[in-house]
Amino acid sequence: MKKSIIGITMGDPAGIGPEIAVKTLSQEAIYDISKPIVIGDCKVMSNASYNITELGYSINSIKDVKDAKFKCGVIDVLDLKNVNLEKLVHGKVDTMCGKASFEYIKTVIELALNKKIDATVTGPIHKEAMNKAGHHYAGHTEIYADLTNTKSYAMMLAEGDFRVAHVSTHVSLKEACSKVKKKRILEVIILADEAVKRLGIKKPRIGVAGLNPHSGEGGLFGDEEIEEIIPAIKSAKKKGIRIEGPVPPDTIFPKAKRGMYDIAIAMYHDQGHIPIKMAGFIWDKDKKQWANISGVNITLGLPIIRTSVDHGVAFGKDGKGKASPDSLIEAIKIASQMSSD
Amino acid sequence: MKKSIIGITMGDPAGIGPEIAVKTLSQEAIYDISKPIVIGDCKVMSNASYNITELGYSINSIKDVKDAKFKCGVIDVLDLKNVNLEKLVHGKVDTMCGKASFEYIKTVIELALNKKIDATVTGPIHKEAMNKAGHHYAGHTEIYADLTNTKSYAMMLAEGDFRVAHVSTHVSLKEACSKVKKKRILEVIILADEAVKRLGIKKPRIGVAGLNPHSGEGGLFGDEEIEEIIPAIKSAKKKGIRIEGPVPPDTIFPKAKRGMYDIAIAMYHDQGHIPIKMAGFIWDKDKKQWANISGVNITLGLPIIRTSVDHGVAFGKDGKGKASPDSLIEAIKIASQMSSD
Repeated sequence: MKKSIIGITMGDPAGIGPEIAVKTLSQEAIYDISKPIVIGDCKVMSNASYNITELGYSINSIKDVKDAKFKCGVIDVLDLKNVNLEKLVHGKVDTMCGKASFEYIKTVIELALNKKIDATVTGPIHKEAMNKAGHHYAGHTEIYADLTNTKSYAMMLAEGDFRVAHVSTHVSLKEACSKVKKKRILEVIILADEAVKRLGIKKPRIGVAGLNPHSGEGGLFGDEEIEEIIPAIKSAKKKGIRIEGPVPPDTIFPKAKRGMYDIAIAMYHDQGHIPIKMAGFIWDKDKKQWANISGVNITLGLPIIRTSVDHGVAFGKDGKGKASPDSLIEAIKIASQMSSD
Repeated sequence: MKKSIIGITMGDPAGIGPEIAVKTLSQEAIYDISKPIVIGDCKVMSNASYNITELGYSINSIKDVKDAKFKCGVIDVLDLKNVNLEKLVHGKVDTMCGKASFEYIKTVIELALNKKIDATVTGPIHKEAMNKAGHHYAGHTEIYADLTNTKSYAMMLAEGDFRVAHVSTHVSLKEACSKVKKKRILEVIILADEAVKRLGIKKPRIGVAGLNPHSGEGGLFGDEEIEEIIPAIKSAKKKGIRIEGPVPPDTIFPKAKRGMYDIAIAMYHDQGHIPIKMAGFIWDKDKKQWANISGVNITLGLPIIRTSVDHGVAFGKDGKGKASPDSLIEAIKIASQMSSD
């Protein structure tokens, strides 16, 4: 298998992005499956191991992807030189950091569009910081859609083999109900089918959730299943997609989690996010923090590949060297799988 | 601790209710914590161990609770003699069975209202069978509310120490959004607080979920948090309730599952049902059936105690002797705890 070149954005310089990038790229296993480079700032990356004494690494500052060494122990960083280390305050919302975060994303998208890299993986950013810097986006997904001129896209989450694609995301629940339309559902089904195929599953089994409790019980409470969801499933079947549903929203996810479906289609943000986080997030009651956060966010429908960590900048944790790189490692693995063909 | 008398309905005679009742009441541990009697049909109960050869038990047919022996190995059954065994077909929707199921529920409610028993536990029924018999209810909860003349009630689910109470249940998601009102939220918070106290937790910690993704992000998508949920939380705080929220819907449940809250308040049916079933339901991919179903349904706000299994009649499984009694055992334990004061 040809190794893919993966561009990884460093994320907000004041968050855990640099730390988890260093931890991830200190692992030989990452270089076994991919050729990773970081789009970020060399000074910040050099400084990111402050409390991680056991990690020995050096930074290779590059201006072009072709200068990368792709060698474990030497982290290749495409240096945008956009952070003043003296002004950087860890764990703070800051305009300089918001501006820098946006530039990493813009650059990684351009590299992918120009085929200099095979896939992109994004580190955590802080929306407020980015807004302060004049970049008004709801998040990464919207930046990617805008800069790649993509109209039809969907958010997928994966926690191991448990996968969910969403019909809508950042809208009110009331508005989400009105977005449950045949055309959009079918679009997301097709995007999900293609994405899972890229992960190496030839004939994905897809389960579609209902919108209403018990999938509406034949129209007793809610008719979106009858009017929109069932017609979308029928159309997908006609296209040869292996699909079933609507499955009651409270049983489809434990079934998908245990392998009954390769991907579940969720009708709204929390319908998909709640089960994925129940599966991948473990709260430590005594330490009052997450003991585990696993899961990857994948944007479907883009002309380029984009996966992402499923957590934020964790400003509270920054600088303590305790952030887990697991989600970033998973995101790189999936980006590498999706770009391998 | 005084042992409570627990009335257990047998559920639909054609389902797994009789089987799980026999399995449950063959366990000494149940008699250590309670005095159980079954409200059902003696012939069906005698016949319910068809494939459970290892269980030795006899049936004590009684007409009055005072005749019960409460002795493990002898199952006390208040015999309503309402099933014709020759006409009983396992796993079929049937009017006779629907009528019988309803009569067990009606009887157990009367016994509890007349203080002949301390708490009620319900076995699984088939709504369609009950409808065929002329009893048009959405489920147990609605029968209990009707027959006890209760207007203010709520559904709680428990999976071990992970508990959720719901602002609404069997309505469309669109209608559920419009039911997110300060008065109702506060009502459910108070019911939840009281219920957890009855389970022996003196000062319950309550977490309230938002309705919208990320709890609406300060009104950016959805204003129910600002208009209804936050005011309800403030009112609850004034009443001395230990409460916080709105917590984003996708992180509150993994936190509650790991002990950050004693109970979470869900804004609609699936917001609470999805995480509870992710925690308690395990799908067996190879056998194409549930390997585990745990969880208890508790109706809050009634003048009597009612807990229930969290699964259906499982018509496919019936007669094979493979149904798990775990949910019924859990339901009896919780009913016994709640009625112990």
